[in-house]
Amino acid sequence: MSNLLGDNYRLMIFGQSHSPMIGGVIEGVPAGVAPDMDFIRAFMARRAPGGALSTARKEADIPEIVSGLNEWGRTCGAPLAFLIKNADHHSRDYADLRDVPRPGHADYTAAIKFGGENDIRGGGQFSGRLTAPLCFAGALAMQLLREKGVRVRARVYSVAGIPDAPLDMARPDLDAIHDGALPCVDPTAAARMAAAIEAARADGDSVGGVVECFATGVPAGLGDPMFDGVENRLARALFGIPAVRGVELGLGFEAANLRGSRHNDAFRMDGDRVVTDTNRHGGALGGITSGMPVVVRVAFKPTPSVALAQNSISLARHEDVPLRIHGRHDPCVVPRAVPVVEGVVACVVYDLMSGDR
Amino acid sequence: MSNLLGDNYRLMIFGQSHSPMIGGVIEGVPAGVAPDMDFIRAFMARRAPGGALSTARKEADIPEIVSGLNEWGRTCGAPLAFLIKNADHHSRDYADLRDVPRPGHADYTAAIKFGGENDIRGGGQFSGRLTAPLCFAGALAMQLLREKGVRVRARVYSVAGIPDAPLDMARPDLDAIHDGALPCVDPTAAARMAAAIEAARADGDSVGGVVECFATGVPAGLGDPMFDGVENRLARALFGIPAVRGVELGLGFEAANLRGSRHNDAFRMDGDRVVTDTNRHGGALGGITSGMPVVVRVAFKPTPSVALAQNSISLARHEDVPLRIHGRHDPCVVPRAVPVVEGVVACVVYDLMSGDR
Amino acid sequence: MSNLLGDNYRLMIFGQSHSPMIGGVIEGVPAGVAPDMDFIRAFMARRAPGGALSTARKEADIPEIVSGLNEWGRTCGAPLAFLIKNADHHSRDYADLRDVPRPGHADYTAAIKFGGENDIRGGGQFSGRLTAPLCFAGALAMQLLREKGVRVRARVYSVAGIPDAPLDMARPDLDAIHDGALPCVDPTAAARMAAAIEAARADGDSVGGVVECFATGVPAGLGDPMFDGVENRLARALFGIPAVRGVELGLGFEAANLRGSRHNDAFRMDGDRVVTDTNRHGGALGGITSGMPVVVRVAFKPTPSVALAQNSISLARHEDVPLRIHGRHDPCVVPRAVPVVEGVVACVVYDLMSGDR
Amino acid sequence: MSNLLGDNYRLMIFGQSHSPMIGGVIEGVPAGVAPDMDFIRAFMARRAPGGALSTARKEADIPEIVSGLNEWGRTCGAPLAFLIKNADHHSRDYADLRDVPRPGHADYTAAIKFGGENDIRGGGQFSGRLTAPLCFAGALAMQLLREKGVRVRARVYSVAGIPDAPLDMARPDLDAIHDGALPCVDPTAAARMAAAIEAARADGDSVGGVVECFATGVPAGLGDPMFDGVENRLARALFGIPAVRGVELGLGFEAANLRGSRHNDAFRMDGDRVVTDTNRHGGALGGITSGMPVVVRVAFKPTPSVALAQNSISLARHEDVPLRIHGRHDPCVVPRAVPVVEGVVACVVYDLMSGDR
Repeated sequence: MSNLLGDNYRLMIFGQSHSPMIGGVIEGVPAGVAPDMDFIRAFMARRAPGGALSTARKEADIPEIVSGLNEWGRTCGAPLAFLIKNADHHSRDYADLRDVPRPGHADYTAAIKFGGENDIRGGGQFSGRLTAPLCFAGALAMQLLREKGVRVRARVYSVAGIPDAPLDMARPDLDAIHDGALPCVDPTAAARMAAAIEAARADGDSVGGVVECFATGVPAGLGDPMFDGVENRLARALFGIPAVRGVELGLGFEAANLRGSRHNDAFRMDGDRVVTDTNRHGGALGGITSGMPVVVRVAFKPTPSVALAQNSISLARHEDVPLRIHGRHDPCVVPRAVPVVEGVVACVVYDLMSGDR
Repeated sequence: MSNLLGDNYRLMIFGQSHSPMIGGVIEGVPAGVAPDMDFIRAFMARRAPGGALSTARKEADIPEIVSGLNEWGRTCGAPLAFLIKNADHHSRDYADLRDVPRPGHADYTAAIKFGGENDIRGGGQFSGRLTAPLCFAGALAMQLLREKGVRVRARVYSVAGIPDAPLDMARPDLDAIHDGALPCVDPTAAARMAAAIEAARADGDSVGGVVECFATGVPAGLGDPMFDGVENRLARALFGIPAVRGVELGLGFEAANLRGSRHNDAFRMDGDRVVTDTNRHGGALGGITSGMPVVVRVAFKPTPSVALAQNSISLARHEDVPLRIHGRHDPCVVPRAVPVVEGVVACVVYDLMSGDR
Repeated sequence: MSNLLGDNYRLMIFGQSHSPMIGGVIEGVPAGVAPDMDFIRAFMARRAPGGALSTARKEADIPEIVSGLNEWGRTCGAPLAFLIKNADHHSRDYADLRDVPRPGHADYTAAIKFGGENDIRGGGQFSGRLTAPLCFAGALAMQLLREKGVRVRARVYSVAGIPDAPLDMARPDLDAIHDGALPCVDPTAAARMAAAIEAARADGDSVGGVVECFATGVPAGLGDPMFDGVENRLARALFGIPAVRGVELGLGFEAANLRGSRHNDAFRMDGDRVVTDTNRHGGALGGITSGMPVVVRVAFKPTPSVALAQNSISLARHEDVPLRIHGRHDPCVVPRAVPVVEGVVACVVYDLMSGDR
Repeated sequence: MSNLLGDNYRLMIFGQSHSPMIGGVIEGVPAGVAPDMDFIRAFMARRAPGGALSTARKEADIPEIVSGLNEWGRTCGAPLAFLIKNADHHSRDYADLRDVPRPGHADYTAAIKFGGENDIRGGGQFSGRLTAPLCFAGALAMQLLREKGVRVRARVYSVAGIPDAPLDMARPDLDAIHDGALPCVDPTAAARMAAAIEAARADGDSVGGVVECFATGVPAGLGDPMFDGVENRLARALFGIPAVRGVELGLGFEAANLRGSRHNDAFRMDGDRVVTDTNRHGGALGGITSGMPVVVRVAFKPTPSVALAQNSISLARHEDVPLRIHGRHDPCVVPRAVPVVEGVVACVVYDLMSGDR
């Protein structure tokens, strides 16, 4: 029972990598909104496969809205359902994986959970392909947030340990993030990251990285103490993206190394607004937004599907066997994860804002 | 709407630092269980204030069960409600904070959210005191997990950047964790951490740290893909502990720096069990447990209440003012957070196990 | 997992008939509200035992708020927890019922569900006593609704088939409902009902009845289509009151006998308000309020605890045995159910109103 | 936020009468189940329009499963999404209704709630057409229940006040229910009902009726006290069917007229099973199933779309106007509601059974 996200802007995702369709159902879009399909398609294109650094799978990823609109093409209060066709799937690539689970993948755990009936083709419901509906919902949330003055933007924070240049968490210059396969502030860093990804691909290997996301313009006072704070909601949602291994806000794990006098962000007045000059708290105190940018960082592991030989087991024969993975895989999920993280953060922030009274 | 945790073992927490009582209501305890009150009290004592490294506030923290038991003192299927009295509170210490919010605290964000009606005394509902009911629920979950062969144990992973010795994530020797104010594997590390805490206290300052928690004996196949996986549930719950800034599983953020060939954990047969020799995945693949220990790390920021002078603002006068915080505060929340993290992890794991069919 | 009601005004109930305490936790009360304890106590007194037509059990039912208030006695945004002591319980009266379940009670079904560990004393969690916390939450909701111009009032619609006089569903004169043990419009009907109850009691028997509840001043546009409409929410909540066997809105079951031309309520303008002259729809169309009074009727079965001899079984010996019930029981739950229905309706309506944006 | 039903067998419905598609997403189907598409299509055909007593709208209603199946056509643990195309819609019929809401419909309440953006075509999301996905989910639940020995069967209990012959609630002969447009026990009653429907149609009018549904083979011990009992869940779900005005279990409202000695069902042993000879309690005591058949009755109002002249208002001009409704409407929803009620009851019962541990 797990494909549902949000309280007020509520998304249910469905589909597998090779099912006829993937898609989602969204409740809670205000009535009277005309989805900006150009924007949504452009946003989804940022995630779609096909870039220089990604898998060779080609998917047009044209979403079709099949319910939720009135005769004027505006939302009518009914759930908005959208579909994306799965076109270019090579299911035969995956047949052997039923017996020999790939290390670092959900093949084994899903086989145990679902008694061997899990859809192994292309990773089934665990595939990164399921982030396409997340991007649809995220793009729509972004459209809705735009009208409220909220902007959500992510960048590649690091790949294979290569960091991008720092961004001021209190007043981030989001326009300094370059577009392109690796959205970074520092083009040199982006080039080094791209080289590291290419080197890994050449070696039949993969690399991981970190995505950092900013939401600016979020008003103070959103989020609920204890288990439904901004942090809890972001973390629950972001761990829904495949390959995520860690989530932190503000300074995150680095905060653990500091003294309080160095970590606290002093308040000051800026006209009649309460602000902080630093934003080590990442825009959330006690689960509630402070009015400073929400800053979250998400760690992605290296793609587990590597071409190099690995050790695994035969589930049927209960013995150790070597494994070589074929098929098409991203050598690094981070570039395509950037819009996905933006989309998920947008869903969470819009959910919070639409719940606020 | 935020004080509720869990689907099958469901906990609602209530109370503020200085309200007459704090407590909780638990649904989903199987009928026929006699709560092991000695165990629960001993567990809660690990969190209670009074240790050498903690605040001077004294609280007996004796929980009283007021519903949910039958005439034999066993659970009867009705919600189990428990109460803990707040005794030693000095509410006058906090009066000035209404006007001048403490940096790094929820004073400001709560004032915005609740229109100045938030309970400022002792931090109100944002106080670490609310972790006492979490520990009650966690101890009861641990009692229930014991019978299923699951053990949950945490340790101080680092304080102020001082690390404890490593523990094998695949086969952790949990008995190597010493009891005491700073549960560590390496007593020398613990002593250095204690010194760092004392030094911070002497300076009127505070320090942060990281807690690492292991759950061993968790069967494979628990957790749901996408938004209700082990990772999502742990993250949502752990961010409910005050002062948490980051949550990671397995190698966490370090995974982002590795190549896939170095990060993947190869499967092998151990008799008829499927195991991995390493556990960089932290016991969860695709949201589902693998049968290897669940390993989670939680970053705690330094206690924001420091005695040193800080800058803040007057909410009434809309001007910058200096602030000096009085009252009794832990110079480091990490020692007392160890059982809290254990308790929360126990709640989440037991929730997952009792939902499994 | 069942003691939770509401989305925005959310109530968790706990306790058993003979547990040390019963009570509840409420989330979603706006910050800054001073609970009107005089009103709450007076409301709860209407439900409390002790009236001429009720059980001999005496309970003071003084609720104590133990969390959720700030230093000024106003709600602070934290969950409001309240407790009610159970004082006058004669637990020995119920010992035999463990073996011989009472017909019409939950003794048998609870024994199956909870493996014989259910609290049998006084009916445990199935006792009508659990409606006391419902009344607390309902009274608080009523206080909050008052400020929004909403009034909730119920009356005894019938007892043992004896009907009260009709009330216009479109423009009910709620002040025509007399206070007293049997709140009716027609004192003669009330007297006949009282006589029927007394006759049943004299015979060692019991009677059922119907409560009708009105909520006036509810704005149009509340409620959500499909499964979270006004009707769905009211029905789910009202079936939580012990002994309820049916719930209907507007004309309810009688509507099934009519033609559409007789059942439809024609719209007309009343100044610039849209109204209907009749209210057969009971204030809800398609799950959404129409602005006309919400009218709901709730059927209560006769108290199953009758003094007359009945047939039952021994769970231990698996054989048929005769049963005579001792203890103190209301010969009719309807009089005391009137405020309970009001309270539940108030909770649902306030939940809807506080969720509306 | 309202199109979601169930905890363990969880259904989200989407679509409007004239949207390109309607459908649903189901979580919680056990892995490894091959949906019996012949059964599902046959079940859905019972609801589909086209019968002698129904609307002239023609819809093939062929459901297509687009996710949730593995390569063998069996459920894989991922959400099962299904689509149904809307083909035969005459949207121009509804254009005038934007201004002049139909009495007894949600036109007015939806216009208020959604600011005039509601989809008015064919009733939008309030259309009976949305019961097609309910039937899909119900048929699948029935397939799953069959394997557990549970049977769900409904009949027309009355139409326009004309009753079918009684059925023993304790041991109902479900095979005595005739198939056909009006599933009844007594063909004479069915014929009289059909005549009443035809007479209403001839008069440009409509009639209501009651559906009674039985679930046999349901084990004792299912359901949760207070707000998640069998009764609460059934009532919440059944009020989701358009035109429902009342729900009752067992004797329902008639119980309110009886004495306890006449209403209680005495327990007795039947071999080693505990049974009752009567089933006035309708299979549920205190929210928990007793092992006796679950019996529920659902009141449907007469179709509000009648051809006769009615009074309404112009929302634009704020004045009273006469209204004549054109378009194609069932003169009585009850015949087609029979499988819908079965489907909803099956969803609820299977949800309960799959949550039981």
